[in-house]
Order: sequence, then structure tokens, then C-alpha cells
Amino acid sequence: MSYHYGQGYPGARHPAPNAPYSGAGAPYGSAPSTPYGGAAVPPGGYYGPGQGGYGGQPHGAPSRHPPPSGNIPPGVNPEAYQWFQSVDTDHSGFINLKELKQALVNSNWSSFNDETCLMMINMFDKTKSGRMDLFGFSALWDFMQRWRALFQQYDRDRSGSINGTELHQALAQMGYNLSPQFSESLVRRFSVHAARPGMQLDRFIHVCTQLQSMTQVFREKDTTMTGNIRLNYEDFLSGAITRLM
Amino acid sequence: MSYHYGQGYPGARHPAPNAPYSGAGAPYGSAPSTPYGGAAVPPGGYYGPGQGGYGGQPHGAPSRHPPPSGNIPPGVNPEAYQWFQSVDTDHSGFINLKELKQALVNSNWSSFNDETCLMMINMFDKTKSGRMDLFGFSALWDFMQRWRALFQQYDRDRSGSINGTELHQALAQMGYNLSPQFSESLVRRFSVHAARPGMQLDRFIHVCTQLQSMTQVFREKDTTMTGNIRLNYEDFLSGAITRLM
Repeated sequence: MSYHYGQGYPGARHPAPNAPYSGAGAPYGSAPSTPYGGAAVPPGGYYGPGQGGYGGQPHGAPSRHPPPSGNIPPGVNPEAYQWFQSVDTDHSGFINLKELKQALVNSNWSSFNDETCLMMINMFDKTKSGRMDLFGFSALWDFMQRWRALFQQYDRDRSGSINGTELHQALAQMGYNLSPQFSESLVRRFSVHAARPGMQLDRFIHVCTQLQSMTQVFREKDTTMTGNIRLNYEDFLSGAITRLM
Repeated sequence: MSYHYGQGYPGARHPAPNAPYSGAGAPYGSAPSTPYGGAAVPPGGYYGPGQGGYGGQPHGAPSRHPPPSGNIPPGVNPEAYQWFQSVDTDHSGFINLKELKQALVNSNWSSFNDETCLMMINMFDKTKSGRMDLFGFSALWDFMQRWRALFQQYDRDRSGSINGTELHQALAQMGYNLSPQFSESLVRRFSVHAARPGMQLDRFIHVCTQLQSMTQVFREKDTTMTGNIRLNYEDFLSGAITRLM
């Protein structure tokens, strides 16, 4: 009997249609589609931070529904195009870690953490220069919208963060076969405040993307689908370090 | 017969004497001592970048051997104290990722990469606020000096970067039982220029620290010391994600 561990999670069977950098060169696997996440929401979410929403709009960004510009290159999301102009504060034509970090916020207006921003730049930086051009940013934009929609679906109490139970439900419905304790430990590990455990959008994206990537590593080694693998020391190091560093 | 994998690597048996944050709370294991690395060198190395050295001196930093100040708190390295004043450009009393990145350079004056800076901040950030106070910076200072000395020892041609053979020799002498192919793949993975494979100081610190941490994970699971472990899916995810993210 084969072991099921994450058959329907985002990205496993439904690669995102507009993720140009989701091939072998992307260190964190392909960008997710959201079979369970519903439609993408506009930047800022359907409800603003004051109502327990998700923020996401950079300071000084264009209005929520800007008119499409005539200069938008083919294949670039018009909203992403408008945002790129605002986020690229030094007008270099690229967005670096600092600019991205200033642009992305959680529901409580806290900036996205460095690790998540860095992971996303590495995923969508086609030039391997530590920054994204417009096309990379547009792909990131689509990626973000899907994860945001998924997060909102499971943040049932609209608190702006999800607890261990909500994360477990999210992972289970994505198809992951993991214990409630696993989700609880992740939420504890990545809570901003120990007194009020909860995982915000940035960590949710980070954790889910890494789970996808590491599941792929496990799946490749678990050729008999028993849910157990045998690893020697070097294989263990190789799998972890080349994927997660 | 037991399997030997990394018995004498830095940090395994000789924890650094001045690493206040090297306990259970440090996500990347303890700071290394350098049983094979010789004495620490002054900032900037014994030879400057023009002679194929290691840089490391921040722009506008104090002279190489500044007079100790009378205001240095007990337990803080006097050189680290002087550097802290220069690196803390906004005089907040803390050093954040941006400030640290501006301060640390490889031998070719390229800034340290974001991942390594972030890892080091996470290691020495006692407050879990994404920044270091003076005491954390002083501990980082000692940590850096030891790794720098070790790196210089194995960069035999003084090129400022080490190739696969040099990395393999370094890892072997640290006690790691890993193949030459493993070192070659690491150097290829982390080379800045594909045409000239080589690992610079920042990646060397990053890789060696993660190897230490992951070896500890493996060691804990390899209770029979055979060099092979059996992992189920959740254990695999837990070990990798909680250590490397």
C-alpha cells in the first residue's frame, strides 16, 4: 500500500500558468496554483487592515484599480506593472531586496520578513543578480495573489494570522498528510509574538513553499511510496542544503 | 563498526568561549572554534585586497588598531566595539541587515550575500528582533575572525576564493567524511561566476555553519552510528525546515 503525502498541494499538479521561472532553475520549486484558494484578490485584499485584512499595498502605490498603461510589455500583469513603477524607487529597472521589503506588508502593516522576501527574489530572479526585472516581478505578483487568497480562506476569524488548527486544516486540504502537532510546532516556531501564537502571511508563504520543495525531495527518494526513506549522511546533507539554502 | 562523519569540525567539541548565544536558542548551532584555523587575524586580513587578501573592513571604519575606549562594556571585544560604532550608521544602538551587509566584504570588495548576513544576524540576535546589539555583534566578531582564519588557511593560492579541491581539504581536515564530488557540487552551486568556479568567504561561512547544524541533526538520528538513517516524511520535513529556514 502506498503512502500519501501531499498529492494535491499547490503547485504539485497545477503549475501556475504565468510563472516563467518555475522550471529547473528555480531553487524553490514551481509557483503554486491554488486549486483550493479561489479567485485572486486585488492588492490590499477585499478588506483593509483596519477591518482585519491583509494589507499588501505599498506606500505611495497607485490606486487600487489603476488604468492600464499603453507601455505594458506583453505577458506582464497590468496591476503588477503599475506596482513595479512604485516599488522600483531608484528607477533602476530592477527591484532589490530592500525595495521589495518596503513594498510588502502583512495585515498589521509589518513588513514582510527578510527570509520570505529573499526566497521570493531567488525564485523570480532570472538574472541571478539578487534582483527582479519587470517580468520576474509580474510572475511574483501572480504567485503572491494566489497565496494571499489561500491564506485568507483559512484565516477564518479574519485575525490576519492563522493558528495551528487553521494551518493544519490548510495543509490537510492541500493534500499533506501531516500531524496536528507538526502544524502547531511550525506556528510556534514562526510566531512573531510567543504570547500570541500565530503565523502571518509572509511566513505562511515561506513555509508552504519550502514544504512543497522538500516534499519533492522526499518524493524523489521514496521510490517505493512507503512514506519512509533511507538516507546516508551525504545524501541527507545534499538534499537539505541544496534545496533550502 | 561505527561510521565517522565530522568528528573534529569546528564547534563540535570546542565551543567558542565567547559565544553568548550559542545555546539551544541559536537556530544554527554553536559558533565555531577553530582547532585547525590558527590565530585570529586583524580586520582586513594580514594582506589587503590588492594583494589577494580578504577585505572585511567597512568603509569609514576606524584604523586597524584603534586605541581601546574607556566606555567598552565588560565582555565586549575592543575591536568589535570600535567597529560597532562605525557600522551602526543610524546610531540606533543596533545593527540591522542593511547595516551589516554594508559593513562586510569579501576579498574582491563585493558585499557579503544576504543569506549569510541574515543567518549571522539570526545566530547572534538575542532579542529576536532582526538586529544585533553590541554584545551580539561582539560575539559575531569573534565568530567571523575564526572562520576568516580558517578560510585563509585553505585558500592556498591566495585567490580570495577556494575551489572544490581546497574546500574538500578543508572539510576533510575539519573531520567531515564527504566525497570530493560533494565539495565540487557545493562550489558550483555557490559560485558567483559560473565561468570561474570558486567559493568566497561569505558562502564558506554559510555552508560550513549549515553543515555543522545539519550534521548535528543527522547525528541525533543516527543512534547506531552506521552512517545511514531511516526517516519518515514528517521527520524529514521537521529536521530540514526547523534547522535551515
